[in-house]
Amino acid sequence: MTELLPDLRPIHAEDESVLILDQTLLPHREQVVRLATLDAAARAIRSMQVRGAPLIGVTAAYGLALAMRADASDAALDRATALLAATRPTAVNLRWALDRVRRRLEPLAPGRRAEAAWDEAQAIAAEDAQANAAIGRHGLALIENLAAAGKPLNVMTHCNAGWLATAAHGTALAPVYAAKAAGLPIHVWVSETRPRNQGLLTAWELGRSGVPHTLIADNAAGLLLRERRVDAVIVGADRIARNGDVANKVGTYLKALAASAAGVPFYVAAPGSTIDWSCPDGGRIPIEERDGSELRRVAGLDDAGGIASLALVSEATQVANPAFDVTPAGLVTAIVCERGAAAPGELAALFPERA
Amino acid sequence: MTELLPDLRPIHAEDESVLILDQTLLPHREQVVRLATLDAAARAIRSMQVRGAPLIGVTAAYGLALAMRADASDAALDRATALLAATRPTAVNLRWALDRVRRRLEPLAPGRRAEAAWDEAQAIAAEDAQANAAIGRHGLALIENLAAAGKPLNVMTHCNAGWLATAAHGTALAPVYAAKAAGLPIHVWVSETRPRNQGLLTAWELGRSGVPHTLIADNAAGLLLRERRVDAVIVGADRIARNGDVANKVGTYLKALAASAAGVPFYVAAPGSTIDWSCPDGGRIPIEERDGSELRRVAGLDDAGGIASLALVSEATQVANPAFDVTPAGLVTAIVCERGAAAPGELAALFPERA
Repeated sequence: MTELLPDLRPIHAEDESVLILDQTLLPHREQVVRLATLDAAARAIRSMQVRGAPLIGVTAAYGLALAMRADASDAALDRATALLAATRPTAVNLRWALDRVRRRLEPLAPGRRAEAAWDEAQAIAAEDAQANAAIGRHGLALIENLAAAGKPLNVMTHCNAGWLATAAHGTALAPVYAAKAAGLPIHVWVSETRPRNQGLLTAWELGRSGVPHTLIADNAAGLLLRERRVDAVIVGADRIARNGDVANKVGTYLKALAASAAGVPFYVAAPGSTIDWSCPDGGRIPIEERDGSELRRVAGLDDAGGIASLALVSEATQVANPAFDVTPAGLVTAIVCERGAAAPGELAALFPERA
Repeated sequence: MTELLPDLRPIHAEDESVLILDQTLLPHREQVVRLATLDAAARAIRSMQVRGAPLIGVTAAYGLALAMRADASDAALDRATALLAATRPTAVNLRWALDRVRRRLEPLAPGRRAEAAWDEAQAIAAEDAQANAAIGRHGLALIENLAAAGKPLNVMTHCNAGWLATAAHGTALAPVYAAKAAGLPIHVWVSETRPRNQGLLTAWELGRSGVPHTLIADNAAGLLLRERRVDAVIVGADRIARNGDVANKVGTYLKALAASAAGVPFYVAAPGSTIDWSCPDGGRIPIEERDGSELRRVAGLDDAGGIASLALVSEATQVANPAFDVTPAGLVTAIVCERGAAAPGELAALFPERA
C-alpha cells in the first residue's frame, strides 16, 4: 500500500541518519527533517513532528540508537530511556519499544550497543509495517460486506491513524487501503480532530493516496451516525487495557457512543504492542493534559488565506486540554490486530502467551 | 442580570435605528453596527453578525419594521417576509416572529404598518427578555442542589445560548446568571463549538459577566462527563418538535449521549417560541448545511498571534458542514421554558392551548 507513495514516508533510516516527515508542517508543507541526536528525537516526539502511537514507538527506538552512538554506557542508556519515556505519557508503544531495545542492549558490552540498537529499531519498524498490513487484511474482512447496495463503503475515522502515524500502512486506515487495493469503492469521513487538527493530516494522506473522503467538524459525527451515513467506525489506539478499554485521541469516546446508539460497528485497529497487559482497565491509563495554548489562539481566515479575524482568548478564561479519552470495552465491537479480530473482552485468546 | 453589562447589548432600538453588536468580530473586537434597512437586517442574520435562535427572531421582526418604513404595501410585506425567512432555515423563532408581525400588520392600512411593526418588534424583544428571566428562575430550581459538597456547581453548555443569543439574559445561560445572582458558586465548561467557534463568544460573555469558566475542545466533553466533572448540561435550542426532539447546534447530540451514559441531567432551555407545534418529530426539522469554507481554512498561530502555519485544505478533500443536529427526546431530562420545566414528552401540559 505504501507503494502509492514511494517518495513520502513518515520515518526511514538512510545511511547513519533517521529521516522524518515533519507533521507539524503538514498539510501546508512536505518537509523531511534529519534526526541526528537523542535530543532531536525526543524533541520530535514532544513537539509532535512525529505522532501516532506506533510511529512514536519506532522513533523512540531510533532515538535510543542515536543516543548509543554518542555514549553507550549504562548511565547513558538510563538517561536516554528516561528522556524518551517522558516525552508523551499515554501511548504505551513508546514504553514498549524502549523496553524492547533495552532488553536487547543490557547484556551487551557498550561497544556493541550502537549497532544492536540500530538493528532493533529497524526490526521494530519492519514488524510494525508487517503488523499493519495484517491489520488491513483482517479489518477488510470485517467491513467488506457492510456497504449499502450501490453505495461505496462509508468508513468514519478519528484523528490520524493512517500510514503517517505508523512505520507503514496505518492502523485504522490499513483496512481502507486494503479495500482500495481490492478495488472496493470506499469513502472516508474525516473528523477535524480539534484541537490539533490531525484530521487535516488524514485528509492530506487520503488525498495523496487517492481515497475519496469528506472532512467534517468533530461535532458532526453524531448526526452522520444517527442518519446511518456511516457503515463502520474504525479508530486507532494509544493504549488498550487488558479488559479491552481503549485510550485514543480525545473525542473517540463520543463517536463510540454515537456508533453504539446507531447500531454501527465500532472497530479499534492497533498492533499488539498497543495492548498494555499490565493495565487492568482504562481507569488506570494516564491521560496527557496538553498546553492550553492549543485552544487559546484562533484565527478566522479570508478567502485568500489572510487573517480576517484573530481571537486570543482572554486570561479570564481557563483552558482544559486533555489529549485522550477512554472508550469502555462495552462500546467496542472488535479490536483488530495483526493476529486477527477479537471482542475486547477476548483479547487474551489472540495472545495466549500473555493470558 | 443584564445590569452586569449595561453598555453591551446584543440588540437594541435607538430612535429610529436598530443597533447590534457585531458577533462576527467577537471576542476580538466589540463593535456596534447600525441596521437601517431590510437588506442590512437580512445580511446581519445570514452572515451571523447576529445569531442565536431568539435573537434571530427579534432581528427579523425589526427587519420587517425597517422594510415597512421604505414600502408598506402588501407586495413589499410579502417580499420582506420571504427575504428574511430565507436567511437561516433551522431556527423556528425566525418564522414565528415573522408570522407574528405579519398577523399584526395585515389588517392595517399601509400608512399605519411601519409604526405597528416597530411596536411589535419591541414587544417581541421585551417578551423574550422576560421569558428568559423566567427560564433562569425555573432552571436554577432544577440545578441548585446538584453540586458536590464543597464544590461549585459545574454546568456544561454548548455553542452560545447566553445573553448574546437573545434579547437579554440568555436561555441556557439564564440559570447560570440566576445562580450567580443568588450567590451560588458556579463554573461553566465551555465547548469551542467548531466550526464557527461560538464557544469563544460564550467564554467572552461569561468573562464579561464575571462567571468562572473553562474552555475545552468539543472532543473533550465525553471525557469530562464520564469522569463526572459535570453536574448538569444545559443547552439552548433552535427548534423543538412537538414530541420533544430538539434541534440545536451540531454536537449537541454527542453531549446528550455522553450525559445520558454518565447519568448527568441534560436540560434544554428555550422560550415557547422555539417549539414548532406543527412539527411532529425531529426527523422533519430541516438541517442547515453551511459553506465548506468554514472548515477549509485553518491557521496555526505562534505565541504572538502571528500565523505559524496555514492550511488550505486541498480540493481533493470534500467538506460536509451541517450546522445543527437533532437530539431525540429520550436523551433530554427536561425542557425549561418561561412557563416552567417539563419532560420532553409532556410539553403540551405547559402549553394546553396548543395541545
